[in-house]
Amino acid sequence: MSEEIVDRALRIPIRIHFGDTDPYGVVYFASYFKYCHHGIEAFLRHYGLPPHQYFRNPERGFGLPVVEATCQFLKPVRYGDELWLDVKVKDVKSKSITFEFSFYERENLQLVARGYVVIVAIDRSWKACELPQELRKIVEDMTP
Amino acid sequence: MSEEIVDRALRIPIRIHFGDTDPYGVVYFASYFKYCHHGIEAFLRHYGLPPHQYFRNPERGFGLPVVEATCQFLKPVRYGDELWLDVKVKDVKSKSITFEFSFYERENLQLVARGYVVIVAIDRSWKACELPQELRKIVEDMTP
Amino acid sequence: MSEEIVDRALRIPIRIHFGDTDPYGVVYFASYFKYCHHGIEAFLRHYGLPPHQYFRNPERGFGLPVVEATCQFLKPVRYGDELWLDVKVKDVKSKSITFEFSFYERENLQLVARGYVVIVAIDRSWKACELPQELRKIVEDMTP
Amino acid sequence: MSEEIVDRALRIPIRIHFGDTDPYGVVYFASYFKYCHHGIEAFLRHYGLPPHQYFRNPERGFGLPVVEATCQFLKPVRYGDELWLDVKVKDVKSKSITFEFSFYERENLQLVARGYVVIVAIDRSWKACELPQELRKIVEDMTP
Repeated sequence: MSEEIVDRALRIPIRIHFGDTDPYGVVYFASYFKYCHHGIEAFLRHYGLPPHQYFRNPERGFGLPVVEATCQFLKPVRYGDELWLDVKVKDVKSKSITFEFSFYERENLQLVARGYVVIVAIDRSWKACELPQELRKIVEDMTP
Repeated sequence: MSEEIVDRALRIPIRIHFGDTDPYGVVYFASYFKYCHHGIEAFLRHYGLPPHQYFRNPERGFGLPVVEATCQFLKPVRYGDELWLDVKVKDVKSKSITFEFSFYERENLQLVARGYVVIVAIDRSWKACELPQELRKIVEDMTP
Repeated sequence: MSEEIVDRALRIPIRIHFGDTDPYGVVYFASYFKYCHHGIEAFLRHYGLPPHQYFRNPERGFGLPVVEATCQFLKPVRYGDELWLDVKVKDVKSKSITFEFSFYERENLQLVARGYVVIVAIDRSWKACELPQELRKIVEDMTP
Repeated sequence: MSEEIVDRALRIPIRIHFGDTDPYGVVYFASYFKYCHHGIEAFLRHYGLPPHQYFRNPERGFGLPVVEATCQFLKPVRYGDELWLDVKVKDVKSKSITFEFSFYERENLQLVARGYVVIVAIDRSWKACELPQELRKIVEDMTP
């Protein structure tokens, strides 16, 4: 149940909680975007980068806001179901990273949702800037 | 559907959203505490105090964190149901306010939940301090 | 502060709540998808269709799950900011509707985020089916 | 980082996520109640009882809704902080269980919040009924 690297992806377990579903017990589409963010946090931690020092770093004067997010929902998932989330680096540019997210049923590894999230490095004035060096190196190593 | 003062309470409409229920379509108990907070925000706005300048005010050096919250859930409420929330000032001390929250079905005014939230004024070092004067005056006027 | 039709869009007010932001006070990207869903609910209500009878209707044997969602975040929005959300029908097919969402700062009508959500009509076995007639008529009338 | 039994309590790690804090980066009081629910879920799983078959069980005709919840917040916790949550059985009656929740900073084991949640067994008509036998046995064994 712990995380591991599978095919250049970080695979983490996702648990469906109360408050994550719609009133019919099916995972609410907005919850997948929270799981994607959990995936980025797990990715950063996996490589020794504490998320609370990377999403916003006042000392070094950078932040990493999300500028675009998209997801397709292929199959309903319900409270009690258990998922794997594979977090991959799809693309790296000098100032941005595109993460790819694939959600699988743990039981049969069937794909249930797939999405993308783009984060951009910004400076103190919210202008786009170069990614922090150590982060850039890590994500470039993970790019296919 | 807009707010009004009824018997020294501010009555506001509460709408149940996706993500507010448990997987069976019944409002998740944790959601009531969010509604209570919405109630305090509506209360502040009703008296001309912008919530974002009261929950934390760096210029004047105070904050109003919640230090205690309790709620009883008397009757299941479902997605599609519509509620009134009555926000009352139950008690005022020099450094704290106790709000009382009563949730009613709009259809028949049946009580479905009741709770309390205590907020305390703190200074820059998170020590309890006197409530802001203008807030104290308002809540004292609303005390039974 | 109430909703109105503006240029074939339903314009509704969006209030930023505690729990909607990231730890830095900026609206968390996942929250925009919740607001989009609130927008679809407001759209249904505006045309006399109760959301809790449309997202899932066991009697008539249909549901309207979200199959795709995407959003771009152009400008940070903070707790205390007030937004308009314009909900438009971008595209209607026999079994699906694409809604378009534009978020504006209320103060200056500057666009801060834009997104799309696709919902599909399904039958009891989660197979795609024709949209309910009355819904189809409404969204076709709103298509540009 | 995994769970363990400590002094008749189930100790689980709690991670603060985006969306769990207020706009100032301090954990929003309503989030603690979500963590309490996660604690009950972890407790059930620890004893081999799948939560999705216990909070509502249509086959056996029972449910376990929350009827009361209370929490005191002693110290601000921030995004990036790591907590332990100790889940204890405080009291068992024939139809209800009172769980006690103690939140500690992982770093120094300082208590930051403490709460209680009461769940009641109900039958198909939402009338209080006897707790499921196997659950009753487990919680009685955990009572101090």
